[in-house]
Amino acid sequence: MFESAELGHKVSKEVWDREVPALREALLDAQYDLAAAKFPVVILVAGVDGAGKSETVNTLNEWMDPRHIQTHGLAEPSDEERERPHMYRYWRMLPPKGKIGIFDGSWYTWPILERACGRSKTSDLDQDMARVARFEQMLIHEGALVLKFWMHLGKDAQKKRLKGLEKDPKTRWRVTPRDWKHFEMYDTFRQVSERALRSTSTGDAPWIVVEATDARYQRLTVGKILLERLRARLDHPAPVVPVIPTHPRPSLDGMNVLRALDLTKRLDKKDYEDELLTLQGRLNLLTRHRNFQKHAVVLVFEGVDAAGKGGGIRRITQALDARMYHIHPIAAPTEEERAQPYLWRFWRHLPRRGRVAIFDRSWYGRVLVERVEGYCAETDWQRAYSEINEFEDQIVRSRSLLLKFWLSISQEEQLRRFEERQATPFKRFKITEEDWRNREKWPAYEAAICDMLDRTSTEIAPWTLVESEDKYYGRIKILKTLVQRLEDEL
Amino acid sequence: MFESAELGHKVSKEVWDREVPALREALLDAQYDLAAAKFPVVILVAGVDGAGKSETVNTLNEWMDPRHIQTHGLAEPSDEERERPHMYRYWRMLPPKGKIGIFDGSWYTWPILERACGRSKTSDLDQDMARVARFEQMLIHEGALVLKFWMHLGKDAQKKRLKGLEKDPKTRWRVTPRDWKHFEMYDTFRQVSERALRSTSTGDAPWIVVEATDARYQRLTVGKILLERLRARLDHPAPVVPVIPTHPRPSLDGMNVLRALDLTKRLDKKDYEDELLTLQGRLNLLTRHRNFQKHAVVLVFEGVDAAGKGGGIRRITQALDARMYHIHPIAAPTEEERAQPYLWRFWRHLPRRGRVAIFDRSWYGRVLVERVEGYCAETDWQRAYSEINEFEDQIVRSRSLLLKFWLSISQEEQLRRFEERQATPFKRFKITEEDWRNREKWPAYEAAICDMLDRTSTEIAPWTLVESEDKYYGRIKILKTLVQRLEDEL
Repeated sequence: MFESAELGHKVSKEVWDREVPALREALLDAQYDLAAAKFPVVILVAGVDGAGKSETVNTLNEWMDPRHIQTHGLAEPSDEERERPHMYRYWRMLPPKGKIGIFDGSWYTWPILERACGRSKTSDLDQDMARVARFEQMLIHEGALVLKFWMHLGKDAQKKRLKGLEKDPKTRWRVTPRDWKHFEMYDTFRQVSERALRSTSTGDAPWIVVEATDARYQRLTVGKILLERLRARLDHPAPVVPVIPTHPRPSLDGMNVLRALDLTKRLDKKDYEDELLTLQGRLNLLTRHRNFQKHAVVLVFEGVDAAGKGGGIRRITQALDARMYHIHPIAAPTEEERAQPYLWRFWRHLPRRGRVAIFDRSWYGRVLVERVEGYCAETDWQRAYSEINEFEDQIVRSRSLLLKFWLSISQEEQLRRFEERQATPFKRFKITEEDWRNREKWPAYEAAICDMLDRTSTEIAPWTLVESEDKYYGRIKILKTLVQRLEDEL
Repeated sequence: MFESAELGHKVSKEVWDREVPALREALLDAQYDLAAAKFPVVILVAGVDGAGKSETVNTLNEWMDPRHIQTHGLAEPSDEERERPHMYRYWRMLPPKGKIGIFDGSWYTWPILERACGRSKTSDLDQDMARVARFEQMLIHEGALVLKFWMHLGKDAQKKRLKGLEKDPKTRWRVTPRDWKHFEMYDTFRQVSERALRSTSTGDAPWIVVEATDARYQRLTVGKILLERLRARLDHPAPVVPVIPTHPRPSLDGMNVLRALDLTKRLDKKDYEDELLTLQGRLNLLTRHRNFQKHAVVLVFEGVDAAGKGGGIRRITQALDARMYHIHPIAAPTEEERAQPYLWRFWRHLPRRGRVAIFDRSWYGRVLVERVEGYCAETDWQRAYSEINEFEDQIVRSRSLLLKFWLSISQEEQLRRFEERQATPFKRFKITEEDWRNREKWPAYEAAICDMLDRTSTEIAPWTLVESEDKYYGRIKILKTLVQRLEDEL
């Protein structure tokens, strides 16, 4: 895999001087076309130590308009980042549509380093790489152009470079014992890297290995390949996938998980008030448990209009310190959010440890409203189920507690609540024309909800179905589930 | 994930009698359209024990024309299969284009069972499932329609079924202690299955969970979904991906791995003959080493026309027992092979242990001749690198020894050999018009070869570059490499 990058590739100053001006001009042109073409470009610059990674990144910034480039040098993760799923920091850094994001160090850095230092096993590396491949596949499905450069120095070349620095009194200080220690790990590092590259070099996002012995060769090669890939994509935009019509398929006997719910379940006002106080008390105590600070809590509320999401959420927050939680009401995405993969706006709101993020509607919009209203193509919502499962897997693996509530009411009860809202002056803001329109699509939504539950109620993040025909019953079930889960985990 | 399949779904005899005739007719129609549409259909029928898997398979065979269906019940792997990579048996069973293959038990069976019985770890399951997902993705890229049915019984339903059988004196014999033992593992099995399903339920090949308590419901559901997916695909064929022209990019300094080879390396005839005899003797001894029977050996020979592949192979086989090896000269695929994914014709020739398979040209045709001559689209050969790496990973993990030789000669030497072939009556058959045509595309082939080496010379299956300008030198290098490798491994 590295053979071609150990040949001593070189570019003369003459060639450099002749080629660079035209290349810069063409790159600038491509960059401006990109702004109009509306897809993001993700460039990874990875490779061995001392192979001129930052210098290459600097050159790209110099050659192009840096206002449309976001450069991210990978340092140690911050406190903020450490308390969230591993990929959080990279999601924050993703370039929006029309821009270029350059990563000097990336999602490959830690898995490779951990393995090379013997702190993880080969199977860990393989699993990390499988996740990385799925992540990049998602970026590509969402429209990104992904370019991955691996800067390579052969063992001899690296040795020569260090020796050369040592010989010269003026540069001797740059070579530390640590450099030589790293150099001793060269073979291990090379083998681990090769394994990582092999399993993530896909048809859509292949690794491009570039020899780093000669800086001119290295930078000119990177620049030319970047230009070539950008132009190919700009001049040949991806074909629009035709939408194959699918009709929601009702089950043969008309039975489904929603209809199987017993919506007659009720609770007296008196019992409700008693239980509410007890549960809220327990919940509050739990949030002050010393282990509570070890977990982040993510609560997802979904349900048809007027199912009681807001009421359910309020009964929880009443028991919480206001500094501890944040409610995220999910409406149409902002301009900034529309320029990113659809999961981006949820990643940004993931809580740190000891905090509670409450999503009033969530990432499930992709497979509910966006599916039913045709806001995205079928291939997009079809792949969303596994992308969502992957997202939740990352949340759960970071020791966050994730609870998902589906609040269920009957079509008749919804009508009753709509009418009540319209008749009550202070509730009128809660009902719009759109609510009435959505109501007409009840069967399509029902099919989408059932598919969603089938595909995303998993062993790591099951849905809790809440019979909410009676508000008291529903709220208590939500609180009980949450309290129970916290008691189990803390 | 299984919630919808624990509702007690039922279909009455009346509905069954009304629906089945029309469904059968429509399925038959679809089946005949499929024969013309030329894509394969892969149907997996998996799920819990006793959930009517074989009965469902039988029903499908009854409803459709069984001459165009291939059904595979999964038994213990045979000796033949056990000595080859794990996926070998499934590759043998893949349906050709235009046909339906039904798998009662599949590539999911063993990984799930092994994990449920505690014989493997969760990380093993995850890695197996990642491999399975890549395999299915490859099938889909190669045009297959993949349908995965999971037959589900809730715990109560399964218990009830066993109890019912036990109560009736006429069926009591069917319930053995083993059945109850399996039943005790229900929760574990369910959890493991859910994990497996979650990670392999992709947008292109989602799992379809079907409740198995009522046979009519189960079979009608499977039949209807099969019809729906078949028709969707038949009526809306995948759009043809436009080919984006790419120009082979020569490296900036005109240097590449091929040109970097020292083709002046030579060997005297006398030295050659001495070394040849010694090495062939060592090789023959090695094949009689007791550990030789523990490995299969796969040798790949690639190189431009007249590079000396045949001569190199002969010098190896001279040292082998004729019952031990098989040479596979790879020319255009047969009709049967064209109806399968491109790797199929190589899978079928993988050797069992103690045997040597010698490929005179190989699966690398995909990224060489097929790429250069435009026999496949760019997306196809671009993804082939990782599919090939995956294939070789499976070969290597099955304890096979895989050696890949690239035989390199200069353009001038090729011309000299061509002319010699034409001038020598008994060599004339070795040179055709096509050879001369290929020669004109030397630069395009050179670029393709360099890309191939970059992408597929991996830490698990590196290429050996053989300087073959001097035939003696080349042949000895090949033999030495092989002998050395065998001595290392045995």
